[in-house]
Amino acid sequence: MQAEIIAVGTELLLGHTINSDAAHVARALAELGIDVFGSCVVGDNAGRLEKALRDGLRENDLLVTTGGLGPTDDDLTRETVARVTGAPLEEHAESLARLREYFGSRPMGVNQRKQALLPRGCTVFANTVGTAPGCAVETPEGKLVIMLPGPPSELLPMLHDSVMPFLAQRQEGAIRSHMVRTFGIGEGDGALLLDGLTAQANPTVATYATDTEMFVRVTAKGGNAHEAAELAAPVVEEVRRRLGECVYGVDVPHLQAVVVDELTRRGQTLATAESCTGGLLASLITDVPGASAVFHAGVVTYANEAKTRLLGVPPELLARVGAVSPEVARHMAEGVRQRHGSDWGIGITGIAGPGGGTAEKPVGLVYIALSSADGTWLRVMRPTGRVMPRAWTRRRAAGHALDMLRRALQGLSVTALRR
Amino acid sequence: MQAEIIAVGTELLLGHTINSDAAHVARALAELGIDVFGSCVVGDNAGRLEKALRDGLRENDLLVTTGGLGPTDDDLTRETVARVTGAPLEEHAESLARLREYFGSRPMGVNQRKQALLPRGCTVFANTVGTAPGCAVETPEGKLVIMLPGPPSELLPMLHDSVMPFLAQRQEGAIRSHMVRTFGIGEGDGALLLDGLTAQANPTVATYATDTEMFVRVTAKGGNAHEAAELAAPVVEEVRRRLGECVYGVDVPHLQAVVVDELTRRGQTLATAESCTGGLLASLITDVPGASAVFHAGVVTYANEAKTRLLGVPPELLARVGAVSPEVARHMAEGVRQRHGSDWGIGITGIAGPGGGTAEKPVGLVYIALSSADGTWLRVMRPTGRVMPRAWTRRRAAGHALDMLRRALQGLSVTALRR
Repeated sequence: MQAEIIAVGTELLLGHTINSDAAHVARALAELGIDVFGSCVVGDNAGRLEKALRDGLRENDLLVTTGGLGPTDDDLTRETVARVTGAPLEEHAESLARLREYFGSRPMGVNQRKQALLPRGCTVFANTVGTAPGCAVETPEGKLVIMLPGPPSELLPMLHDSVMPFLAQRQEGAIRSHMVRTFGIGEGDGALLLDGLTAQANPTVATYATDTEMFVRVTAKGGNAHEAAELAAPVVEEVRRRLGECVYGVDVPHLQAVVVDELTRRGQTLATAESCTGGLLASLITDVPGASAVFHAGVVTYANEAKTRLLGVPPELLARVGAVSPEVARHMAEGVRQRHGSDWGIGITGIAGPGGGTAEKPVGLVYIALSSADGTWLRVMRPTGRVMPRAWTRRRAAGHALDMLRRALQGLSVTALRR
Repeated sequence: MQAEIIAVGTELLLGHTINSDAAHVARALAELGIDVFGSCVVGDNAGRLEKALRDGLRENDLLVTTGGLGPTDDDLTRETVARVTGAPLEEHAESLARLREYFGSRPMGVNQRKQALLPRGCTVFANTVGTAPGCAVETPEGKLVIMLPGPPSELLPMLHDSVMPFLAQRQEGAIRSHMVRTFGIGEGDGALLLDGLTAQANPTVATYATDTEMFVRVTAKGGNAHEAAELAAPVVEEVRRRLGECVYGVDVPHLQAVVVDELTRRGQTLATAESCTGGLLASLITDVPGASAVFHAGVVTYANEAKTRLLGVPPELLARVGAVSPEVARHMAEGVRQRHGSDWGIGITGIAGPGGGTAEKPVGLVYIALSSADGTWLRVMRPTGRVMPRAWTRRRAAGHALDMLRRALQGLSVTALRR
């Protein structure tokens, strides 16, 4: 099955909203083995949307639209899809009842009511979060148009709970896809290590990089689920073997989830002391549901005085070596661990920029320390030689801290000066 | 001038990378008064890219491509644009020299060298961050194709420092665009308040919403810069007047920037005590360059014991009313302010979910307190009636905290129980 994604909305076209929906939909389709051959954005303009739909239906078996299902006059997707597929809009009783329930005692405008108008004969996907339902319409030629609401908080549950099961039933064969996630290896080095693997056709092996991590997706197609799984497994193992200790997990959402999971399994706790990352590390960890069992407290000590009062970093040390130093990072990690009686302590101090750098301590220099009852490890993040954005330096430093703890928890070398 | 954005990359099509480049380019073009009529994504496939370029050139005056300029065999944009525009690739001496400088003593592969191949007669945009330069090629018909590198860290400086000045020279007339930013008003209510304004043609007034904020963009076109500015100013004032105290700023990046700016101007300081937001508030504030002057310390007190030790919340209070209560929020805000000797203190306690909710204290219930020498204010965030994602509740709670402080600093009603 070949698909195209059509995102609808002038706010997307003008760049006021970043089109994350297309990525969510594309990933879901890939999981099902549906090839996405194109993706486009059209503004809130019925003529242009109609052209995109007609062009898309000529070349593809499936179109997925996102957005344009709301109550305002700008929302034109429903009407336009109805016109293109030839299925007239009808009021859907169950969706209208849901809308009424959503508004409860509040008045429901006539505009709101139009959200219950859906193409005749479509399969309706209920909106469990917002107002506009989604649906799948089949054209007379047997092609499919799926309409989904624009807000990601509404699109995501609908996509995973309703659309994917609906599409999975229609798919022949099966696909098995795994994501191998790494920290500490670049895409260039990763490609060299995976040489030969990335050229094969089934399973496919592809690398992806964000600004702090590299991922490898292994996707196998088989006649049935078992066959696809059997094809994928050895290749995933080979990828793991080649990338070694940089692999922090397969099919896990992110590094912080692995860390929270490992800590939970051992019944251990963590406390953090952050300077340049300013709470980002604590925020990443506590964004994982259930983090409260392993994360009791963290401190953000921007000022030297706070480093002394909350962590016991000696003022004379701060005066002698400066706040951005390996010694202070170590004191922060040890101080926060001891004061909170946790098993692990992390200390981060550095210069995120854009100001505050010197020749001796340039922007981008960050020291990260991990402390346990067994000792304290240190990593140094050195400037890249180019001026990196403040947010990049902060994200990368938080990533290093998580990776150090992950390695320690997995019994691997934490790499760097062990005290 | 009418434009289309073509993003190149299989990783975008598969959704492994979110297409933020298109948003960056669209916003830059809008600033220049260039209308973006379409935006699409094509994979790393020369045939499909060639079709997208030829289709795009038929209907538009300007195409902007992002991505596909790197050193690997997948990077096909340069060759394809050269073929479509009829300008053969030639080695650009200055770009080659830059590449050599970039690699320094490291070996430079033959693949890297191809990045200095550019269409004959193009205007070259130097890459100050990475390896691949961008460029603008004029077709024999006088249309423009601009190629930009994919990584946002490379694209953004090139876009603002080179491409916008280049395009501005070619534009007739001028555009002036302002963004009015609000907190605490929904898009539906905003649209009602702006009734009449959003229908006019010049300046245009358009609303945009994220999951926590609503923005209003006012865009005026004039014969020259002065004329455009004169047209825009009274409409911006009218939007401000109608939306009232919910407006936290015009042409400001975000709420935390306004808060840091106001605190800096007054020479005042802030300390934060977070439970359910887990460091997100501190992280937002410290993401603002220069935050260190106003933010000395913050604590993340997930466990009750940490609330007592780091903030002095009485254990008997925690036992009596529970951690998620107005009293504890107030104690947290006052405790963190007093212990750090700051002018302002914020305390947040709530249930972000998905677990931990009860009938009495459901997921989504958050108390936010702001403390100063003048007293303590409290806001309550009640569940929406639907299950909202953990990240949404956290972002929204941090937004409320920032908005309370912003209102207090701007001398407005902080809304809610003043003690």
